[in-house]
Amino acid sequence: MTSPTRGYTATKDQLLSRLRRIEGQVRGIERMVEEDRYCIDVLTQISAIQAALDKVALGLLDDHARHCMIAGAEEGRSQEMADEMMAAVGRLMKRG
Amino acid sequence: MTSPTRGYTATKDQLLSRLRRIEGQVRGIERMVEEDRYCIDVLTQISAIQAALDKVALGLLDDHARHCMIAGAEEGRSQEMADEMMAAVGRLMKRG
Amino acid sequence: MTSPTRGYTATKDQLLSRLRRIEGQVRGIERMVEEDRYCIDVLTQISAIQAALDKVALGLLDDHARHCMIAGAEEGRSQEMADEMMAAVGRLMKRG
Amino acid sequence: MTSPTRGYTATKDQLLSRLRRIEGQVRGIERMVEEDRYCIDVLTQISAIQAALDKVALGLLDDHARHCMIAGAEEGRSQEMADEMMAAVGRLMKRG
Repeated sequence: MTSPTRGYTATKDQLLSRLRRIEGQVRGIERMVEEDRYCIDVLTQISAIQAALDKVALGLLDDHARHCMIAGAEEGRSQEMADEMMAAVGRLMKRG
Repeated sequence: MTSPTRGYTATKDQLLSRLRRIEGQVRGIERMVEEDRYCIDVLTQISAIQAALDKVALGLLDDHARHCMIAGAEEGRSQEMADEMMAAVGRLMKRG
Repeated sequence: MTSPTRGYTATKDQLLSRLRRIEGQVRGIERMVEEDRYCIDVLTQISAIQAALDKVALGLLDDHARHCMIAGAEEGRSQEMADEMMAAVGRLMKRG
Repeated sequence: MTSPTRGYTATKDQLLSRLRRIEGQVRGIERMVEEDRYCIDVLTQISAIQAALDKVALGLLDDHARHCMIAGAEEGRSQEMADEMMAAVGRLMKRG
């Protein structure tokens, strides 16, 4: 039923609830800026959002890696999938 | 009228429009997850949001630094303001 | 002859020459500090070393991922190897 | 006696001993690679070096910030020094 090419389908609800929480955190920062809150406090919130996004990213990578080891090997696409994953890790380490 | 202890007041509108764009990008990722999009593409979007948040953070830090150098020196609070700023930079480098 | 559980053996010489270059860059920073060079220039060199270390780390991860997909699947240790790899990626993203 | 344009002169010995320790850690990684040690263990060491470099960088930034707030304001070079510092922070966040 679930697509075999997407690893995170199993935890889709978890993932969506984390993303909705992050969306709320971004709106919280907008309010802080509107209310002229002290910028160091805004920066602390930005760091918290980045940590939450990193956690989502690691979850997606984890599922991708696990999937790669099984399907990638079966389909003979190990090399291609490892390349894609490393490019994604490199972007995450450099942040875009 | 605007408080002298907040450096980014001058570009408050710019800051708010950047944060609203980030909020939209997070909603875009929620849609991608709902539609079971390929996780490497979702990761690319997460990296883009991280880069956008870094830019907002650097803007806030920049204004804080500039403000610190003037007001902090005047008020004899240089040490305290440098400490706060470095703690914020450390959190940003470690992402929370 | 070479161990099948280590993926980067093939490019061991490359890896060692990159690490020796990084070692030289660290010594270069020591000299800059001894000579009281401007700290912003020292910071630029530190960023360059961190970028070089990230490149070494991505190379090691890449070989590990590729190895995981083949050996991990064969040995039924996919889950364990993906867990290890994600923990390593998490540490690299948070820098220790 | 110490130059007013370099903030970290006071802790120069501390800084040098930290850098020598980092140099030793890089040599340790070279040995691990020569001995074909498990790549996840090598990655853990790389993360430890990145964290140590971040600490050196934050120390340099801290002294620079403190110095900037005093000398920069006196010399009317606040803007220039804040720009330099933010460019350095941006490079550290993106690692080069």
